[in-house]
Order: sequence, then C-alpha cells, then structure tokens
Amino acid sequence: MKKIREGLAEVFVPPESLTKRSETFYNPEMEHQRNVTVASLRMFKVEEVLDPLAATGVRGIRILKEVRGVRRVLFNDINPKAVKLIEKNLKLNKIPKKRYEIQKRDANSLFLKKRKFDFVDIDPFGSPIRYLKNVGYVLRKNSLLGVTATDSGALAGKFAKACFRRYGVFAGKTDFPKELGVRVLITSILQNLAVHELTFEPLYSHANHYFRTIGLVKHNPDKNLSKIKMISYCPKCHNKKIGIETKCNNCSEKTNVLGPIWTGKIQDKDFCRKLLTNFEFGNRKEIMLCSEEIDSPFYYDLHRIAKSMKKSSPKIENVIENLKRKGFRASRTHLCATGVKTNSERIFFC
Amino acid sequence: MKKIREGLAEVFVPPESLTKRSETFYNPEMEHQRNVTVASLRMFKVEEVLDPLAATGVRGIRILKEVRGVRRVLFNDINPKAVKLIEKNLKLNKIPKKRYEIQKRDANSLFLKKRKFDFVDIDPFGSPIRYLKNVGYVLRKNSLLGVTATDSGALAGKFAKACFRRYGVFAGKTDFPKELGVRVLITSILQNLAVHELTFEPLYSHANHYFRTIGLVKHNPDKNLSKIKMISYCPKCHNKKIGIETKCNNCSEKTNVLGPIWTGKIQDKDFCRKLLTNFEFGNRKEIMLCSEEIDSPFYYDLHRIAKSMKKSSPKIENVIENLKRKGFRASRTHLCATGVKTNSERIFFC
Repeated sequence: MKKIREGLAEVFVPPESLTKRSETFYNPEMEHQRNVTVASLRMFKVEEVLDPLAATGVRGIRILKEVRGVRRVLFNDINPKAVKLIEKNLKLNKIPKKRYEIQKRDANSLFLKKRKFDFVDIDPFGSPIRYLKNVGYVLRKNSLLGVTATDSGALAGKFAKACFRRYGVFAGKTDFPKELGVRVLITSILQNLAVHELTFEPLYSHANHYFRTIGLVKHNPDKNLSKIKMISYCPKCHNKKIGIETKCNNCSEKTNVLGPIWTGKIQDKDFCRKLLTNFEFGNRKEIMLCSEEIDSPFYYDLHRIAKSMKKSSPKIENVIENLKRKGFRASRTHLCATGVKTNSERIFFC
Repeated sequence: MKKIREGLAEVFVPPESLTKRSETFYNPEMEHQRNVTVASLRMFKVEEVLDPLAATGVRGIRILKEVRGVRRVLFNDINPKAVKLIEKNLKLNKIPKKRYEIQKRDANSLFLKKRKFDFVDIDPFGSPIRYLKNVGYVLRKNSLLGVTATDSGALAGKFAKACFRRYGVFAGKTDFPKELGVRVLITSILQNLAVHELTFEPLYSHANHYFRTIGLVKHNPDKNLSKIKMISYCPKCHNKKIGIETKCNNCSEKTNVLGPIWTGKIQDKDFCRKLLTNFEFGNRKEIMLCSEEIDSPFYYDLHRIAKSMKKSSPKIENVIENLKRKGFRASRTHLCATGVKTNSERIFFC
C-alpha cells in the first residue's frame, strides 16, 4: 500500500494505479474530476451523500473534509477488499464514526432500498448504464448527481453498435466526438431518470479519456426531454443541424442522422463562474474555458475540416475573430483544442 | 372472495375484477393471454419459472398444472395480501410444496438477486418499464420472457410525451397504433436486455386494451438491434417507410419521423402454427389470424385512409384480392379489423 495525498485527504491506495477489476481501484487521473465535484458540492445544501462504488473511499473522505454542511457519507462497495480499505482510510483521516456508514452490497441492490440522498456519484469501471437504470430510486428532488463513464469509444460514436446497445443512440464518426460523448451520456441520464418522473440539469460536463457530468435533479421530466432530438451531420463538410435533414444544406451531400441526443446546455455558465471561486486544488484552465464557451450544441474541429477541404488549418483565433466580425457568436471549447463553437451554420476560413 | 375456474386451475379472486392498486388483482380479460402463455411454454424445455408480480398466483398455478416438465414456480408479490392469497390458491389446487416457493419482495430487488430462470413473466399495473430495466439479471440464455403492458395510450403513440419518457421512442398519432404499440414494447425489451448482452426474439405478440409479447431470450444483441430503425410516416396519406424520408414519396407531404422502433417480426409463423396445436382453452381466432399474417412491419387502416381520401371504405377482402392480383403479398392483421398488411408501398382502392 502506498499513502498519497489528494485535496485535504490522505489515503492508502493499492500500489499500481491501474489494477485488475477484482482489486480496489484508485485512479490518479480522476483527481481533477474529484476536485470539480468537491467545489461543486460547496455551492449547495448537501447533507447526505452516497458513494455507491466507493473503492478507496477517497471521494467520500474528501467530501467529508472539504465540504461544509455534509453530515454523513454512505460508502458502498461490493468488494470486501475495498470495504477494508475504506475503513482504514477513514481512520487515517480521523473521521468520527457518526459521520459515515459502510455497506458491502451490489450498488443496484442498494439503490433498490430507496433511501434518499442529496448527492450520489456514479463512478464505475466502464459504462455507468447499469447503475443509471436504478439510481432514480435514491435521488431526492433538488439533489445532485455526478456520473463518470470510461467507455469513451462507445459514447463518442467510435463504436456505434456499442453506443446503441448501451445508450439507445444512433451514433457514428464525427468531428465533434467529445461533445457527442458528453451528450449521449446526458441523454441516457435524462431517459433513465424520466421513468422516475425526474430530470437532470447539467451544471458542468467535461471529457478526457473519460466523460463526466454533474448536475441537478429536478421534477418535470418532459421539459428537458423535449430538448432531446435527432441531429443531422454531414460526413463531407462536417456541417451539423438540430433536426432531421437528409441532404446537407451546405454541400448537398447525404447526411447521417444521429440521435436522439440532448441538445440543451452541458454547462451552466453562472455555475462555472462560481465554481472558479470555490475551486481550491488543481488546474483551473478547463473551468475557465467552460465558463467562456458559448452554448452551441456542437463544435467544429478546424483540423478535420481543413483536412477534408485539403487546405492547411487556419489559426483558431483568426477563425473566431472572423466569425465575430461577421456578427456571429464564437468561442473555443474545452472539449477540443482545435474546436470552435459558433451559432453560424458555417465556418469561414480566411 | 369468489372462486373461479381458469384453465385447469381453480382460484379465489377478490370480488371486484378491477380493484385498487393496493389490493390483489385478478383481471379476467387477461385469461386469453394466460391461455397463450401456457400453450407457448408447452413447446419448450421450461423447468424453473418466475412470476415476479404474481397477484392471485393464477398464472403460476396454471403453469404448474398445465405445462409438463415445469419443476418449480417462484411466486413473488410485494403485497402481503397477495402472498396470503397465493398460499391459499396453491392449497386449493393441491400443489405439492416442493413445486413452489413464495417471496414477498419488490420485483426489482428480486431480479437483483440474479437467480436464473427458464421463463419470467412481467405483468404489472401500467407500464412494465421499471421491471424491464432489471429483468435481464434473471434470464437464462434460451429462456422465455413474457411482457404485458397496460399503458396503451403511451405505447400506441396517443400520448407521445409519455411514450418518449418511458420508452425513449418518438411516437405520434398514426393509422397503425396497435402495431406501433407492440413494436415500441419490443424495442424497449430489446434495448433493456442489450445492456446484459441479451436479445429477444418475439414468438407471439398481440394487442387488446393491453399489449403483450412473448419471445425467446438469446445472446448476440447486435443482430437484432440492427433491425431497430427510424421510420417515416405520412400524416396525410398514411404512407409509411422504414428509414428516414422527410417528404412522402406518395403525396409529397412532410412526413413524421418516428422511432427508433423494432422493424423485425412480431410473430414467428412456425410458432403460431404449433401454438394452435398446443392451445386448449379459449378463442383460437386471433392465433389463426396471426399465423396467416404477412411479415410487414406496418398495417394500413382502410377506414382511416378512406376517411382522409373522403371516399367510402372498400371491402377489406377486395383490397387484399386486388393487391394480390397486382403481384403483392397482402393479408389481414389480428391488430385491426380494417387493417391490411402488404409489401406494396401503396394501397389500391378499387
């Protein structure tokens, strides 16, 4: 066992960062997403927290130490090794017994107990789909839900069959795979919560080698479900539109119709700005980018467009300036270094 | 309590046929669907059966008495009144104790125990969606699954928002609501089993005031998922096509794009014929119709087409004859008395 520090917590973790499925798991690359989670929770009244796939317990321990107002965390893991490690780490961090509870159950069985929480975090190996099917049972109205997915190939449309098998979304190769992945994940959350008459309002979403979103759980599912739509994507010129169009209105090529996917916001701008003031550890750059990003449901990847036009890729700053000069809104996106978000239907290369 | 006879079983049932949610429920209108179920099971090697929402226990008792080879039925109901009634009815029918087991759990919690069965029947109040999300945990490969849904308005596209909220399918008013309903139900079964790497092959599907399908559970989900597609429906001339077409190729009206929905078979013809020889109680007419129905994914309702054309409705026999004379395949459908199934893209009124 190795002792590491993350945020205000000190935890023992297994020696290898990436271990077998049967072993307890600590992923240092997820530190950023836990930093975001902790900062997010600080903005809400969160008393009872459930970490249903707790592994080392690092997330829950950080929440107990770094978020004021949290009364109690229920740590759960089906792996007995994980349960022992969580106990050890809670002691190491001197967390009083009344502030936590540990269970060793299948996460879905735990959800079926229908005990309600203010924050639940689903951070599994691979796809979260099996857990999404039942998490609605434990979410209070106005609670927070965080979901991580590491089956990036399926979510981003690289593995279209797996995407349809798990999330029921027609996907495919595009020039905005990371945005597609985030949106497929949010779609699946919305559809699975809708069965419980609940909905999800994304506050912050990001992508790395994983996809992650955190948002508010509300009533009235139909309002948000109406923003789940089919979209049309031109494989030739990368033009995209919300709605069904069988022929590209830019280059007349046959489009691919993808979806159904969430076309609403993936970030709440006010929230992003407040997140910056509550953010204590780690890199702020991504959050800065998110807070400045415009709310368009897609980005255009200049590299890929240039390649398909057999031109050299222009400077991203110039393209954004150019679009703004023409009266459009435009910004970078945190999801792609060469990506541009805009409300224009075309990207103008200069 | 009233004593009634259904198939070879005698059961006590609550006095009113339609009772409150909190009461045990016996629906005499479901007798036909239980007759079909019993006859279906006779064709397969079924040893262990789960009735997770057993109510009076009538289905499981009939299976024990009427299907050879069934070793044991697990009756489950969360309602303590139902559990008492099941015990009483098992005694009334002199079922030996080793042939049954009774549990009083939430059906989903029971599914999460992951014990496997050869036949599972989901027959809830209203929508089966919450149970579909977890039934994959208890289905053996080559097992049978039966699903009933009584939320007919949502499934048939009358309540499009509810259809999307529960089943993730864009629906709407059509001239083939019963076929749409059956297909939305099958789509949802397929998508929920796919997460468990399982698929569903419909053997027999029917509609009444409820929708019902029974089929085989297999591996290799992708093969069947590829038959889930978007469809295009013309609200003016009722023309329909598999795939996305924004303009009707018959009358040029803007189409409605619905789906994703299952476009494969809803009946297995061989199975229907064998079902007739195994069918002991009740009306055979529906099964006869099913066994003669052609495998087109939609029907055309002559009444509605005639109405929209401001003509009087022709005789269904004449339309079918007419189509056949032109070299198309055509048949009636058990789903609609004025419905025609055909591989022609048009219905020719004479």
